[in-house]
Amino acid sequence: MALKSFIEVQPDSHFSIQNLPYGVFKTAPDSVQRPCVAIGEYLLNLAEIAAAGLFDGSLLKDSDCFDQPNLNKFLSLGRPAWKEARATLQKLLSSTEPALRDNEALRSRSLIQLRKVAMVVPVAIQDYTDFFSSMHLPDNSRAASCESPNKILPNRFHLPIAYHGRASSIVISGTDIVRPRGQSAPIVNSPPHFGPSAKMDFELEMAAVVGTGNELGKPVDIHKAEDHIFGLVLMNDWSARDIQGWESVPLGPFLGKSFGTTISPWIVTLEALEPFKCDSPIQDPPPLPYLAEKTSQNYDISMEVLLRPVGQQDTQVLTRTNSKHLYWTLPQLFAHHTINGCNLQPGDLLGTGILSGPEQESFSCLLELTWSGQKPMVLSHGISRMFLEDGDEIIITGQSKGNGYTVGFGTCAGMIVPSPP
Amino acid sequence: MALKSFIEVQPDSHFSIQNLPYGVFKTAPDSVQRPCVAIGEYLLNLAEIAAAGLFDGSLLKDSDCFDQPNLNKFLSLGRPAWKEARATLQKLLSSTEPALRDNEALRSRSLIQLRKVAMVVPVAIQDYTDFFSSMHLPDNSRAASCESPNKILPNRFHLPIAYHGRASSIVISGTDIVRPRGQSAPIVNSPPHFGPSAKMDFELEMAAVVGTGNELGKPVDIHKAEDHIFGLVLMNDWSARDIQGWESVPLGPFLGKSFGTTISPWIVTLEALEPFKCDSPIQDPPPLPYLAEKTSQNYDISMEVLLRPVGQQDTQVLTRTNSKHLYWTLPQLFAHHTINGCNLQPGDLLGTGILSGPEQESFSCLLELTWSGQKPMVLSHGISRMFLEDGDEIIITGQSKGNGYTVGFGTCAGMIVPSPP
Repeated sequence: MALKSFIEVQPDSHFSIQNLPYGVFKTAPDSVQRPCVAIGEYLLNLAEIAAAGLFDGSLLKDSDCFDQPNLNKFLSLGRPAWKEARATLQKLLSSTEPALRDNEALRSRSLIQLRKVAMVVPVAIQDYTDFFSSMHLPDNSRAASCESPNKILPNRFHLPIAYHGRASSIVISGTDIVRPRGQSAPIVNSPPHFGPSAKMDFELEMAAVVGTGNELGKPVDIHKAEDHIFGLVLMNDWSARDIQGWESVPLGPFLGKSFGTTISPWIVTLEALEPFKCDSPIQDPPPLPYLAEKTSQNYDISMEVLLRPVGQQDTQVLTRTNSKHLYWTLPQLFAHHTINGCNLQPGDLLGTGILSGPEQESFSCLLELTWSGQKPMVLSHGISRMFLEDGDEIIITGQSKGNGYTVGFGTCAGMIVPSPP
Repeated sequence: MALKSFIEVQPDSHFSIQNLPYGVFKTAPDSVQRPCVAIGEYLLNLAEIAAAGLFDGSLLKDSDCFDQPNLNKFLSLGRPAWKEARATLQKLLSSTEPALRDNEALRSRSLIQLRKVAMVVPVAIQDYTDFFSSMHLPDNSRAASCESPNKILPNRFHLPIAYHGRASSIVISGTDIVRPRGQSAPIVNSPPHFGPSAKMDFELEMAAVVGTGNELGKPVDIHKAEDHIFGLVLMNDWSARDIQGWESVPLGPFLGKSFGTTISPWIVTLEALEPFKCDSPIQDPPPLPYLAEKTSQNYDISMEVLLRPVGQQDTQVLTRTNSKHLYWTLPQLFAHHTINGCNLQPGDLLGTGILSGPEQESFSCLLELTWSGQKPMVLSHGISRMFLEDGDEIIITGQSKGNGYTVGFGTCAGMIVPSPP
C-alpha cells in the first residue's frame, strides 16, 4: 500500500508524497524567499517547520539551512541530511501522523496554496555547464545538414562534450524571454546581418543540481559522483540559431544562448527518482577508467514539449521523448567535469543537453524537427512553424509514473516577447 | 608638479598616488576580508577610513560599501561614487593633507605593510567571459599551423568572439596551479590518451572588471558602455592544449581551461589609466552601428611575461607586449556582450583574450612562441621549453609610465604543481 498524505493528492498530480520536490517561494514581490516542498496543490514552508522544531533528526535539528533565501546551504549538507529531511517530511505529511495534521495553527502558517505564491530560482547558481550527452542529437542534427557525425565529432563517444553556460540569465519558469538581437552570417561579401533573431528555437533538457561540491584540484571519483548530485530540474535552453551559427566558431555558443535559459521551479531529488532508474544505453567504445561505472543507469522520465502558438488558447504537442536516451549518465557528467580539478559548488547546474530520442517525433528542438529549417513543422488549425514567433509559448513537462502515484516536475514555461526597438 | 603622498613611493613603484588600485586583503587565514587600496609598500584599509568618517562625500558618507568582504557593493554604486572615492583617497594620502598624515592612531590602524597580508580574489565573480580581441592572435596561431585565418574565422573582424569561462576556478596570484589530467586525441584507431596534460601553456591577458550591470533583456548602448567598467586586472588563462584540442569541437574550450585562471590582486581603475589612453587599431571593415564608437581607444600598458624555470632562482623574459594591440575596445566588449539582452553583474570579468603583438617577441602564449609546439623556445642557461614543466612559475606584470610616477598592476603569478596520483 503506497504512502498517503493527509493532504489530498490526485493520482496524476506531479507532487505526491513520494515526490516532495524542493523549491523557493515568496508570497509578494518584496517578501522574503523561503525553501519549501510541494505536496498536491500546496507548498510546505520549511522555515516554519524548522521553527516549530519538527526537523528533529540529528543532522538538521539545530540547522538554519531552511531559514535562508535559497537552498544552497541545505544542499551543501550532503546526502545524509537530504535523506533525513525527506524522511522527516514524508512522516510529517503522512495520513497517519498527527503532528502537523492536527495542529491547525501550524498548518495555516506552513501550508500555502501554490496558486497564491510566486516561485523563484531555487538556488544561487554560481556556474552553469551545458553538456551534449544525448545519444541521438548529433546524428539527427548532422543528418539534417547532410554531414557525417562521426567525422565531425570523433570525441563524442569518448567524453561528454560540454561548454560553460551563462549563469546570470537563468530564469524561473513563467519569465518572458526577450527575442535577442544580434549578428548573423553575411551573404557572400555583404556585411553581417543585424537585427532580431529570425531563428528562435527551444531545447528540451534536464539539468542536474549539484549538492555538495569539491575542492579545486581534487577530482571526484566516478563511484562517488552520484552522492554529489541533489536532484534534477527541467530546462529550456533557448537558442537563437542564426546568432549561434555565425559566432560560434571556434569558441562555441555565446550570445546565441545567453539571453535566457528557463528552469522549472521544482527540484526533484534523486531519492524521489530512485524507483525510476533504468539501464543506460550500452556505451561502445567502453569509457576510459575514470568514467567507467559498475552499472550505468538513467532515469525513465517521460518528457513532453507543448507549443501554445501566439493568439491561440490551446497547446499542441511538439515532441514526446524520455530522459532514458541520454548516452552519458549524471555521475559521468560530474566525474568528467572534475577530472581536471575543476571545482563544482552547491547550486551549480549541469545541463544534460538535448533529450532527443531516435524517432523524429522525439526530436527535442526545432532545428531537428524542421531538419535545420528545411521543412516546416505542420501543426493543427492550419499552423506551422519553422522557428518560434513572438507570442509563442513553450511548455515543457516531465513525469514518472509509480504505482498509484506520480513523480513529476511541474512545468517549465516561457513566452517569446519582441525585441526592444 | 605631480601629486605626492606623505607615504614614500619610489618612482618605479606600481602603486603611486596616481594609481590607488583596489584589492581585498586579510591579515590571517581566518580573519575578515576588507577592501583596500595600495600605496607604495602599504595598503590602506578602507573599512577603517570609512569607520573614521573620512569618506565624507555625498555618495559614500553613509555607505557600508567598504565594510564588506569584497568590492561588489562599492562597484555597484557606479562611476560617480568611484570618482568620489578616488578624490577622497588621493586627498587623504597627499603630502599636504594632515587628516591621516598627522593622526598616528588612525595611521597605525589603517596602513599595513603589503608583505604582512594575504590578498584574496577582490570580487565575488558571478560570471566570467573570455574574449578573443587581439588583432594578431589568429594570424599568429594560424600561421603556425599553416592555415588561412580569414577563411577559418570570417567573423573575427565583425564581432569580438567569446566564450563563457568557468568562474569558480579563478584564483588569486600566488595560488599553485595543479596540472590537470584529462583526455587528449587518440592516435589513429586507439582510444584517446589519458593522463596529466603534456602541453601546459599560459595565456597573457587582461580582464575588465564590471562595475555596474544591466537588467536582463536591456542591452547597453555602446556610448554608455565604458561607464559600466570599473577597472582592469592582469590575467593568466592557463591552458592545457592537448585537453583543449580534443574536447573543443564543436562547443569550445572546457576542461582545457577550467582547472585554474589566475588574476592579479589589484584592480587598476579606468580613472588611473585615463592618462594612458591611446588610439586603437583602425577597424576595417567598419563595425556595425551597435559597435561603432565616436572614437575607439585602448590603453598603453607595457606587459611582460617572466618564467622562473623549475629549480632556478632567476627569471627569464618570455614575452614583451602591450595592451594597445587589442582590436576590440572594452566598451565594444561590453556592448557586444549585452546586445542580445544578456545581463552583466558587478564583479563579472571580461577577459580580453591574448595580448599578442605583431612580432614573435610579443607572442603571448607558448602555443604561438613555439609555433604550435613545432620548435622549442630556447632560453638562457641551457634551458628550453615547448610547454611548461612542473615547478615552472609564470609571472605577468603590466605598467604604464607617467611623468615621474608609475601606474602598475603588481604581478600575477602562479606555479605549476604535479597532478594528483
